[in-house]
Amino acid sequence: MDEYLGTIRERPVAAQVSPGCIEEQLPREAPEDPEPLDAILEDFEQRILAGITHWNHPRFFGYFAISGSRPGILAESLTAALNVNGMLWRTSPAATELERRVLAWLAQWMGLPEGRFGIIFDTASVSTLHAVLAARHLKDPEGRAGGHRPDLVVYASEQAHSSVEKAVLALGMGQKNFRRIGVDQAFRMRTDQLESAIMADVRAGLRPCCIVATVGTTGATAVDPVDEVAELAQRYGLWLHVDAAYAGMAAMLPEMRALFGGVERADSLVVNPHKWLFTPMDCSVLYTRRPAVLREALSLTPDYLQTDDEAVNLMDYGIPLGRRFRALKLWFIMRAFGRRRTTEILRNHLAWAKALAERIEQDERFELAAPVLFSLVCFRLRGAEERTQELLERINRGGFALLSPVVLHGKLAIRFAIGNIHTTWQDVEATWEAISRAAESRA
Amino acid sequence: MDEYLGTIRERPVAAQVSPGCIEEQLPREAPEDPEPLDAILEDFEQRILAGITHWNHPRFFGYFAISGSRPGILAESLTAALNVNGMLWRTSPAATELERRVLAWLAQWMGLPEGRFGIIFDTASVSTLHAVLAARHLKDPEGRAGGHRPDLVVYASEQAHSSVEKAVLALGMGQKNFRRIGVDQAFRMRTDQLESAIMADVRAGLRPCCIVATVGTTGATAVDPVDEVAELAQRYGLWLHVDAAYAGMAAMLPEMRALFGGVERADSLVVNPHKWLFTPMDCSVLYTRRPAVLREALSLTPDYLQTDDEAVNLMDYGIPLGRRFRALKLWFIMRAFGRRRTTEILRNHLAWAKALAERIEQDERFELAAPVLFSLVCFRLRGAEERTQELLERINRGGFALLSPVVLHGKLAIRFAIGNIHTTWQDVEATWEAISRAAESRA
Repeated sequence: MDEYLGTIRERPVAAQVSPGCIEEQLPREAPEDPEPLDAILEDFEQRILAGITHWNHPRFFGYFAISGSRPGILAESLTAALNVNGMLWRTSPAATELERRVLAWLAQWMGLPEGRFGIIFDTASVSTLHAVLAARHLKDPEGRAGGHRPDLVVYASEQAHSSVEKAVLALGMGQKNFRRIGVDQAFRMRTDQLESAIMADVRAGLRPCCIVATVGTTGATAVDPVDEVAELAQRYGLWLHVDAAYAGMAAMLPEMRALFGGVERADSLVVNPHKWLFTPMDCSVLYTRRPAVLREALSLTPDYLQTDDEAVNLMDYGIPLGRRFRALKLWFIMRAFGRRRTTEILRNHLAWAKALAERIEQDERFELAAPVLFSLVCFRLRGAEERTQELLERINRGGFALLSPVVLHGKLAIRFAIGNIHTTWQDVEATWEAISRAAESRA
Repeated sequence: MDEYLGTIRERPVAAQVSPGCIEEQLPREAPEDPEPLDAILEDFEQRILAGITHWNHPRFFGYFAISGSRPGILAESLTAALNVNGMLWRTSPAATELERRVLAWLAQWMGLPEGRFGIIFDTASVSTLHAVLAARHLKDPEGRAGGHRPDLVVYASEQAHSSVEKAVLALGMGQKNFRRIGVDQAFRMRTDQLESAIMADVRAGLRPCCIVATVGTTGATAVDPVDEVAELAQRYGLWLHVDAAYAGMAAMLPEMRALFGGVERADSLVVNPHKWLFTPMDCSVLYTRRPAVLREALSLTPDYLQTDDEAVNLMDYGIPLGRRFRALKLWFIMRAFGRRRTTEILRNHLAWAKALAERIEQDERFELAAPVLFSLVCFRLRGAEERTQELLERINRGGFALLSPVVLHGKLAIRFAIGNIHTTWQDVEATWEAISRAAESRA
């Protein structure tokens, strides 16, 4: 592990392989005899690493840059060694109690109102699914027994994450009952269109159920006007879920708090420590003001799991029965970095994004494709779209850094996401220089 | 990690704490300044370990005994260090390709038909949810767009795991559309009752959709007559899902294969390497003959994730978008143990369960509460139920071993589940002696 992290900078960020390459090198026959760990590790280095795209590389700027930090990796190995299942309080009291405590700490860091219930799931997709599920139950409690009505409507912006629509599909609510609301020039949900859509649905005899607002969209880290959305949610009686899976951590910074106005009014909120809090995958936190609704929607306790404890049994609040001890890594990370060091790192990422955006604006070949609010910079080459596409492919093929594509207002752009704990300004600058050179040679 | 595993036998298996004990010892204020890792590890040992119920203890015989084996723990720390997200083939080719290869290996070990599609989820709850979701889509494909009909019926035995009912709730299918079919004296689903229920539902205008049969139920490791169930599933056009989350690994043993008759006819099958294959949580495998149905039900690809690759993108087959590299630990474990050593360990567990059952049968104070088919032994004291309850509490309070309760045919029994990789016959025997002594002193 130390060896890997120590040499990661020397590796190409994106795996340079074609489909089937890795699989071909692995025997078709399942292993018959035990092999020494050294042999497996050797193969890991020779065969597996060649097919890895290094998300933990300091110049991984694709999707959202994430980090497997050392305290987090250490905690994950302890989690695996303990191998406890915290489904009930009694099946490992420390697992439930540490989860409650670290999620209260995280809420403090983010300035959330006290006493909010939190629970860790694997991914934001699953956290959001639970939020929409709770919204559905609140609007249609008889559906638990009778099957849910096919007239409950869910709203999110065109820029909302695909997991919202996937939740609607999985919950069986019907894709036609999912409304994609238009966005303004800065990719923010248009609340006038939201209100029109709700009113039209009411007139059509449908039942508006849930709005998902996003703080820090995946495409361009846009921030929906959560306060206005909350107003509409209240007026029309909808559950408000806020997806701040990536950007949530920025709420730690007083100077960024304004972007989170209204989030305190949400019925539920998802933030992912495994995105911008140096926590290895997977660790997604769902906060809610209404845990009882989630519990009512899902709780089922078979006799072999019945207990007399008055303690909280987290299995009652979610679909997965087994619960890995994910709170441990969050505890290690929050203590190892503290608020002070964590905010320093986040501020660096934000500052580097601004500095990068300035370089881009000063270069007349390029243009920014979206406002830079957090640590993501979206840009493109002016002129023909193919040139931006070629530039992106060239950088990724080169292996020096990794970037990812996005279509914004119908036009391709390149996403440059800063967020890995080992990234330095030199990494950002050197990558920008590589981009600049690659663009030149194509001109 | 080595230190923990080296001293685990000296620890009480069940945490000896009352609710709130651990939380109270943790500061209410979130950490401000960075702390050295040594201080955190010290606190981990002093405060957290006191509240841990040691699932990785060789005398943990509760629920299902599971293992965080050393190769698995090592692989988990590498997974955290790599921190790749295998949502798309291209986001880390080795993650997708290794997952395909190790799941093909596991299918070979279990004697499953070649070419079956496999995918790793976190828990059996989530795997089963996806199976029922696919069943729903196949029966009611228009529901994806229009919202699903509230007349699709799911069947499982009274002894089926609660995750089946939870899937029905989560999917919004309606608890009233879930049928618990009665069981025979050996806790096997009664296919005559299953057929009657299906026919009654058809007559009532409902649409039978999915049957979940279990090989190795949680309560008593009963085996539903899968072949007969498969016959009915075919006759009436239902999806057959088999839950072999715990017992699946026993299919590796030719002498146990007969218990799996009919499993090859299932549309989907869940087996959990994190139960009886020494794999740290979490690692649940869903196999299916019909991956296209799962994909049609759930696939959604936003532009920033669109690729031209012909490779499989596993995110299209499940709810979670983010995909931790869980295949790595399975690869480490399958190679480190090989088929030969793995089957030796499983055979030991099975033999010890038989030997324990013999001891119990020879002791007239006790009776077996269910046939012993795998590595679980269910038993009770003859006479008043309170005595069994007291015995269970006494053993668990003592900390020498951990057992769990179950109600079978309306009467309490104690579950003694063998399955941890470090368990020896001496552990089983010494625990039986402790039980025997505890029973005596209460007589």
